[in-house]
Amino acid sequence: MDITTWKDWFISLYTLQDVQLALTATIRIITTLILAKLLIYFGTKIIERLFISKPGKFIADNRPQTLSGLLKSVLRYVVYFVAGMSIIEIFVPNAAKTILAGAGILGLAVGFGAQNLVRDVITGFFILFEDQYQVGEYVTLAGVTGIVEEIGLRVTKIREFGGQLHIIPNGTISHVANYNRGAMLAQVEVGISYEENVDKATAVLKTMCQEFAKIWAEDLVEGPDVLGVVRFGESEVVIRITCKTKAMRQWEIERQLRKLVKETFDREGIEIPHSRRVLLSNGGAEGA
Amino acid sequence: MDITTWKDWFISLYTLQDVQLALTATIRIITTLILAKLLIYFGTKIIERLFISKPGKFIADNRPQTLSGLLKSVLRYVVYFVAGMSIIEIFVPNAAKTILAGAGILGLAVGFGAQNLVRDVITGFFILFEDQYQVGEYVTLAGVTGIVEEIGLRVTKIREFGGQLHIIPNGTISHVANYNRGAMLAQVEVGISYEENVDKATAVLKTMCQEFAKIWAEDLVEGPDVLGVVRFGESEVVIRITCKTKAMRQWEIERQLRKLVKETFDREGIEIPHSRRVLLSNGGAEGA
Amino acid sequence: MDITTWKDWFISLYTLQDVQLALTATIRIITTLILAKLLIYFGTKIIERLFISKPGKFIADNRPQTLSGLLKSVLRYVVYFVAGMSIIEIFVPNAAKTILAGAGILGLAVGFGAQNLVRDVITGFFILFEDQYQVGEYVTLAGVTGIVEEIGLRVTKIREFGGQLHIIPNGTISHVANYNRGAMLAQVEVGISYEENVDKATAVLKTMCQEFAKIWAEDLVEGPDVLGVVRFGESEVVIRITCKTKAMRQWEIERQLRKLVKETFDREGIEIPHSRRVLLSNGGAEGA
Amino acid sequence: MDITTWKDWFISLYTLQDVQLALTATIRIITTLILAKLLIYFGTKIIERLFISKPGKFIADNRPQTLSGLLKSVLRYVVYFVAGMSIIEIFVPNAAKTILAGAGILGLAVGFGAQNLVRDVITGFFILFEDQYQVGEYVTLAGVTGIVEEIGLRVTKIREFGGQLHIIPNGTISHVANYNRGAMLAQVEVGISYEENVDKATAVLKTMCQEFAKIWAEDLVEGPDVLGVVRFGESEVVIRITCKTKAMRQWEIERQLRKLVKETFDREGIEIPHSRRVLLSNGGAEGA
Amino acid sequence: MDITTWKDWFISLYTLQDVQLALTATIRIITTLILAKLLIYFGTKIIERLFISKPGKFIADNRPQTLSGLLKSVLRYVVYFVAGMSIIEIFVPNAAKTILAGAGILGLAVGFGAQNLVRDVITGFFILFEDQYQVGEYVTLAGVTGIVEEIGLRVTKIREFGGQLHIIPNGTISHVANYNRGAMLAQVEVGISYEENVDKATAVLKTMCQEFAKIWAEDLVEGPDVLGVVRFGESEVVIRITCKTKAMRQWEIERQLRKLVKETFDREGIEIPHSRRVLLSNGGAEGA
Amino acid sequence: MDITTWKDWFISLYTLQDVQLALTATIRIITTLILAKLLIYFGTKIIERLFISKPGKFIADNRPQTLSGLLKSVLRYVVYFVAGMSIIEIFVPNAAKTILAGAGILGLAVGFGAQNLVRDVITGFFILFEDQYQVGEYVTLAGVTGIVEEIGLRVTKIREFGGQLHIIPNGTISHVANYNRGAMLAQVEVGISYEENVDKATAVLKTMCQEFAKIWAEDLVEGPDVLGVVRFGESEVVIRITCKTKAMRQWEIERQLRKLVKETFDREGIEIPHSRRVLLSNGGAEGA
Amino acid sequence: MDITTWKDWFISLYTLQDVQLALTATIRIITTLILAKLLIYFGTKIIERLFISKPGKFIADNRPQTLSGLLKSVLRYVVYFVAGMSIIEIFVPNAAKTILAGAGILGLAVGFGAQNLVRDVITGFFILFEDQYQVGEYVTLAGVTGIVEEIGLRVTKIREFGGQLHIIPNGTISHVANYNRGAMLAQVEVGISYEENVDKATAVLKTMCQEFAKIWAEDLVEGPDVLGVVRFGESEVVIRITCKTKAMRQWEIERQLRKLVKETFDREGIEIPHSRRVLLSNGGAEGA
Repeated sequence: MDITTWKDWFISLYTLQDVQLALTATIRIITTLILAKLLIYFGTKIIERLFISKPGKFIADNRPQTLSGLLKSVLRYVVYFVAGMSIIEIFVPNAAKTILAGAGILGLAVGFGAQNLVRDVITGFFILFEDQYQVGEYVTLAGVTGIVEEIGLRVTKIREFGGQLHIIPNGTISHVANYNRGAMLAQVEVGISYEENVDKATAVLKTMCQEFAKIWAEDLVEGPDVLGVVRFGESEVVIRITCKTKAMRQWEIERQLRKLVKETFDREGIEIPHSRRVLLSNGGAEGA
Repeated sequence: MDITTWKDWFISLYTLQDVQLALTATIRIITTLILAKLLIYFGTKIIERLFISKPGKFIADNRPQTLSGLLKSVLRYVVYFVAGMSIIEIFVPNAAKTILAGAGILGLAVGFGAQNLVRDVITGFFILFEDQYQVGEYVTLAGVTGIVEEIGLRVTKIREFGGQLHIIPNGTISHVANYNRGAMLAQVEVGISYEENVDKATAVLKTMCQEFAKIWAEDLVEGPDVLGVVRFGESEVVIRITCKTKAMRQWEIERQLRKLVKETFDREGIEIPHSRRVLLSNGGAEGA
Repeated sequence: MDITTWKDWFISLYTLQDVQLALTATIRIITTLILAKLLIYFGTKIIERLFISKPGKFIADNRPQTLSGLLKSVLRYVVYFVAGMSIIEIFVPNAAKTILAGAGILGLAVGFGAQNLVRDVITGFFILFEDQYQVGEYVTLAGVTGIVEEIGLRVTKIREFGGQLHIIPNGTISHVANYNRGAMLAQVEVGISYEENVDKATAVLKTMCQEFAKIWAEDLVEGPDVLGVVRFGESEVVIRITCKTKAMRQWEIERQLRKLVKETFDREGIEIPHSRRVLLSNGGAEGA
Repeated sequence: MDITTWKDWFISLYTLQDVQLALTATIRIITTLILAKLLIYFGTKIIERLFISKPGKFIADNRPQTLSGLLKSVLRYVVYFVAGMSIIEIFVPNAAKTILAGAGILGLAVGFGAQNLVRDVITGFFILFEDQYQVGEYVTLAGVTGIVEEIGLRVTKIREFGGQLHIIPNGTISHVANYNRGAMLAQVEVGISYEENVDKATAVLKTMCQEFAKIWAEDLVEGPDVLGVVRFGESEVVIRITCKTKAMRQWEIERQLRKLVKETFDREGIEIPHSRRVLLSNGGAEGA
Repeated sequence: MDITTWKDWFISLYTLQDVQLALTATIRIITTLILAKLLIYFGTKIIERLFISKPGKFIADNRPQTLSGLLKSVLRYVVYFVAGMSIIEIFVPNAAKTILAGAGILGLAVGFGAQNLVRDVITGFFILFEDQYQVGEYVTLAGVTGIVEEIGLRVTKIREFGGQLHIIPNGTISHVANYNRGAMLAQVEVGISYEENVDKATAVLKTMCQEFAKIWAEDLVEGPDVLGVVRFGESEVVIRITCKTKAMRQWEIERQLRKLVKETFDREGIEIPHSRRVLLSNGGAEGA
Repeated sequence: MDITTWKDWFISLYTLQDVQLALTATIRIITTLILAKLLIYFGTKIIERLFISKPGKFIADNRPQTLSGLLKSVLRYVVYFVAGMSIIEIFVPNAAKTILAGAGILGLAVGFGAQNLVRDVITGFFILFEDQYQVGEYVTLAGVTGIVEEIGLRVTKIREFGGQLHIIPNGTISHVANYNRGAMLAQVEVGISYEENVDKATAVLKTMCQEFAKIWAEDLVEGPDVLGVVRFGESEVVIRITCKTKAMRQWEIERQLRKLVKETFDREGIEIPHSRRVLLSNGGAEGA
Repeated sequence: MDITTWKDWFISLYTLQDVQLALTATIRIITTLILAKLLIYFGTKIIERLFISKPGKFIADNRPQTLSGLLKSVLRYVVYFVAGMSIIEIFVPNAAKTILAGAGILGLAVGFGAQNLVRDVITGFFILFEDQYQVGEYVTLAGVTGIVEEIGLRVTKIREFGGQLHIIPNGTISHVANYNRGAMLAQVEVGISYEENVDKATAVLKTMCQEFAKIWAEDLVEGPDVLGVVRFGESEVVIRITCKTKAMRQWEIERQLRKLVKETFDREGIEIPHSRRVLLSNGGAEGA
């Protein structure tokens, strides 16, 4: 500033230049706003076409709405942010710097604090995009097992068997186990005593399995089979029966199988052994 | 500075320019303050309209007050901070730099230290906004189970069953289990001996369940059912009874069910078996 | 530097300019120091008014002193630091840069190392500000349970039941359980044998509870109640009695309840069962 | 800006220069776009040649398609991004700065949030490139054991034995155990009583192993061998039998071996002992 | 550089200017060194006065030496570092930049690597400053319990009961339990059989405690008391005796109490019960 | 740009200068490429001499090839990268900046994502350089124990005893246990009953050890010794025998030792005791 | 560049100036190299004097060589790096920037990857400097217990009791337990039955300890003492004997003590009790 007299200084406060600058600023602001509106309008169009013009191609159900809605929001907020910053920049040339000076101190704290939020949304996006699970499916995720009630971009809600509603941030979901994508395995283990004949017990169980397969044909995918001796227990030889069932029917099938095994063994006189112990008497030793 | 004589130097300390500069600074400061006040005034208006003009729309109870209060505070502190920095900048052009020089050393430490604070507030915001739980609900979060006593932006207070008041920073809450959002499951397991007939025991329990459903109709959502054989125990066949109850009534129902099962079995002469063991004597072996 | 002859160079070492510069520097230093002093003086005034002018409003006991002391220290160190840096800048224009050059290498290490310190102080501030616990209260924090002996900005000292003094950095305290904020629960579980009548035992215990409530009325908040059958044990049916007591009296009440239960059962002839086992002899099998 | 009169200012808004600048910009944009297209075209060619011109050399099956597809995508997005940034730069010279001002605040959060995504893709690339496992193989990874159903760049899908479909982000896979790369070990442990002769039992088992090797020759890689005494148990001397089998046949072989051991011991009269206990009577002591 | 002929170039290598510059540099170096020496001299004086002029005020024992020594070292290294960097800057104007170019690559690695070192020293400073423990005290820290042998700024040495010397970096010490700051609790639990009378046993133990208090008066702070029934055990009613002892005497007192309890019960004929079990014979069932 | 007329502007698009600039660029590019080639050529020579000119000095087997190959790759990629960046810089002076603008946003994510990769390679380099393990050795690393099948810069492949092939990223290997670097310890523990004479049993075992040492002289490094009483078990006094064997022979030696101990004790009539229990009858108490 | 004609441009490629610049560069390079050599030479001298001129003062054994060797390497690499960067800077003024452009992308990854390496060396330096352990000592570190075989700057090698060689990066060593720095504690616990007289048993053990102290005087530091009753076991009163031994002799002393205790109790007729159980018969209850 080359002003050195009182008068010049006073005039310098509000001169013609300032008015011109104000007008320039106004025009720039209007241009910026129009540009922003146009960007949002066309960006929205492109996003909508992207998701609607390919029906049934790679995204099923209501996920397109969720995803395109997400992308539109992101677009809108980014455009608003850049436009806002540009307008501030017009008035206060170093506003960005000043804000960043503060942000340099706080930015790290905010950044670390907000990273969970960002991770939630990114993971949520992939859960929807890759169709990892849908509402109504029975899943295990983040250590919780239950029916999915709601899938959002930030949280997934799951109702556990006991009735509790779990609200789980998507970012804490690292791996998903889905129980509704194919046949499930029902499996029953039963012990027979070491005195029993393994071949006889196996034969009895095999006959039983064939009957069972007929009765529950509707729920079974692959009829129950006797796998054989899977373990030498302390007091029993353990035999395993497995079958494949339709999803979510495995527990009922296991309960029915267990009941039938009990009835069959009762009928055939095969014992499910209690814990056994051999006692050795040592005469009247010790202190005697 | 091109001053090379003593006189020039002395004059150079306080010249007309300095006075002019002082005046310029004063005007700038006043303008800054007025701008800041206006920003806060209109920002507050906008925030209030945002939350009040949509009554009952997407936010219930007293959460609007909490949230709009939060946003107003954030607005006020950001504006104050930027205004303060701008005023300092007027006097000491490189103040920001100098402060940042220190912040560069300390900023990392402060940033890491403060990130917990930021995470607490962000998580607290989402707990309120998404209505994850309310005061009076029975929840499990951060490993603590109890009644919510207070929900703040930084901490949630929970009273455990034993009477302890837990003060939990919101940032340590990753997933919430809420026991008040729908029917809860009451579940009783009872063992019968291997000698008992499973069908008879099941029939007895089914009759019992029907009686029970009439007596406790008010608390039950879905009458108790006998699921079937869920496990082969060491000395008993385990049968499970489940029912759905109104929230928070599940424990009373379970206790009443257990008592009724005991009475029914006593009446019907069905034994709840003790641990059994088969002893095998080995003659007078070992050392004999 | 445009000096090209020996004489010019020699003179250039200490000229009039240098003296002038020295004087300028002196004046600047004095101004800086006065400004710093003023800032500290008025800042201190403001902090003091903030905490003292609102007696009994939102901060109880001696916490105002601790907090205002903290804020004053922070103010003082920040002002000193900025003033010091400004003065150094006057002499060595690029001092900040040089220091930062070193800080760039070391800053990260120091930052990470010091973050624990910062987190301790921030958490300590909130413990005091939110009145999470006070000296003399019985709390659980960072896995340690005991009586609070001292609350500082960096550490909390807790005396465990066994007499050990635990010194716990505040930053490692994530969630606090306070046993002095309301009534506590005393709880006694007692098993009766399967042969016993549940209704009779419950009735006996209920009578006992009424007597107990009269004797210990002073310590009790809510008279002891018999909850009912809470578990089928291996050899016993478990019944639970609970009551609410004044804080810190729960253990004594539990011990007195236990003693009374024992005496009552002895008097009424109700057995607290030992572990039971059914022995099945298998004839002279195995190796015989 | 040296404009000081109203007229000059008005004209300065849209002058010849502006038109010229607009034309320059247009030409630059077109050039940028052509360059981008060329880069993508030739880059794609090079990537394709890289993977196709060396058939059967170091990459088997359909992995070349996956990998070259990946590289093409990366190329395309990088080129688009740089071109886009350059075009924006032409219009708004400091756009990058403004965007970065926002990014400075948000970048950290996004960076941390997105790092999982990047790690998933990098790990996925190496799984494919190093052929760590293929669809249909039986593997253990990230704590899940099952058949690989699908290998993607971001997730691997594994079907567990029980039927659940696990969706595992590749980034959470740190070490892989593959059960299909060579012969597997089947192993059976059987206990004989301390009274039994070890040499005799070993001899019987060795004969049995030779028979077994003949029957199951097709599934065995290395005939079953009796290793010897591997442990002194509480009531038994434990002997181990091992053999190498074709991949995925180990469980069947183990079950068959177990059944044969039981039958052989029954035939030869070697006892698999129950738990033994020596009882010492202490006369009529204690309280007597 | 405007030199365009061979001669000029040759002369330009070593001109008068260079000599002058060399002299300037020499003078600057000497000034820097003198300044550094003065800074260290006066800084040392200040540090010494800080710690010595307040004898017995807030720092006991030899910690003042350790702390003032530490501060002097830090001062010395910081001054040397800044002086060294300034001198290098005189010769090679961009040395700092070049070094930072390398540091930019390596700095992160070094920073992360060295952070443990910094954290050790910071924690060590607070251990000394806050007098968390002293040489000879019995403490638990970082999972190790023993006698403190040496407290340094980087490591603490602790000798465990078994004789091992543990060398523990201070940075891994998060919370300290000190057993020498007040009375310790000695505690003995003894079980009596369910057949025994609780009141009688309590009375006997109370008499015993009074005798004990007389014998061990010197080591006891608060005479042993019978707390009452603290648990219903499987075969015994558990009674607890506690007393407060001088620090480090608790183990001896517990051993003496235990011996006295045994002798008292032997004398009074109160039984410390063995594990009890009720046997129920089921006739000649199972397989019979 | 000082162009103000249409003609000037048009001409300015492609002038003589541009052609000259193009030529300059071409020459610079060629120079850059030649320089890069030379750097790679001589760098490769130096690396090769470094590893080949010192045969058998400090690196055994085929590791020189692996390491020099690694260094050559690193050299090549670094030179290519710098050359590429320089060439781009010639055309688009601010390309680096623009790329960095994008990198600023993505760099963090990529950096974190890729750090595992870098850590794998650095750890792999040290495994090879320090010869921590070789193909065919039996090692424990990252929780997996087995034979090393392949050592790469990124992953190590280990075949477990059970046949599974483990693919372990080197970065997850923090500490290595190698079973092939010296003699291994075989160790057998055997219990004798409390009634037995310890001296007699020790003498018998010592004689046995001498015989054993003769038979297995080839596999033993240090003959088996009887260490003595290492534990008072519940029903037995435990004696330990140890010996040093050649690597990988320890399991066979342990099995043979166990067999011999059993045979020796059978011959000498020393009992390996079963679990013992003293029964105390309490008359007809409880409920009687 | 102000060249506008073809001729000027062509000449401008290689002019006199270029040759002069080349010569200047050559001279600068030579100067840089000489300076680097001198720095290394004198630095080495200083390091050597630092460690050799103070023999036996504060560093024992061969650690001076290791440490001075380390410092010399660090000096050499730092000087080479700075010199190399300076020379490159002479030719390509912005080389550092270009390299940093790449480093900005890769630096983070490399930095994180290499931090383990840096931490290893820093920890290794302190292990050597503080003499935490020496070759041949018996230590526990990073969860491994054994004899130290080799201490390097990056890794420590430990041979476990079983013979395995553990290679442990120093950075994973957080706390060291050293068994060779003073007397070790040998400790034997023995149970006597509740029927036994505690005083008699203690007296017998005390006499035994005195004998033992004479026989093993050479290995003992503090004669074995009978501590007293340390625990009420299920079936026994547990008495503890402790003594201090020379380092590494504790295990032998424990074994000898145990053997002597067994022999003494056998001689004196004091019983080491088996597990006891009181049986209560319930008549012919249950199902009868």
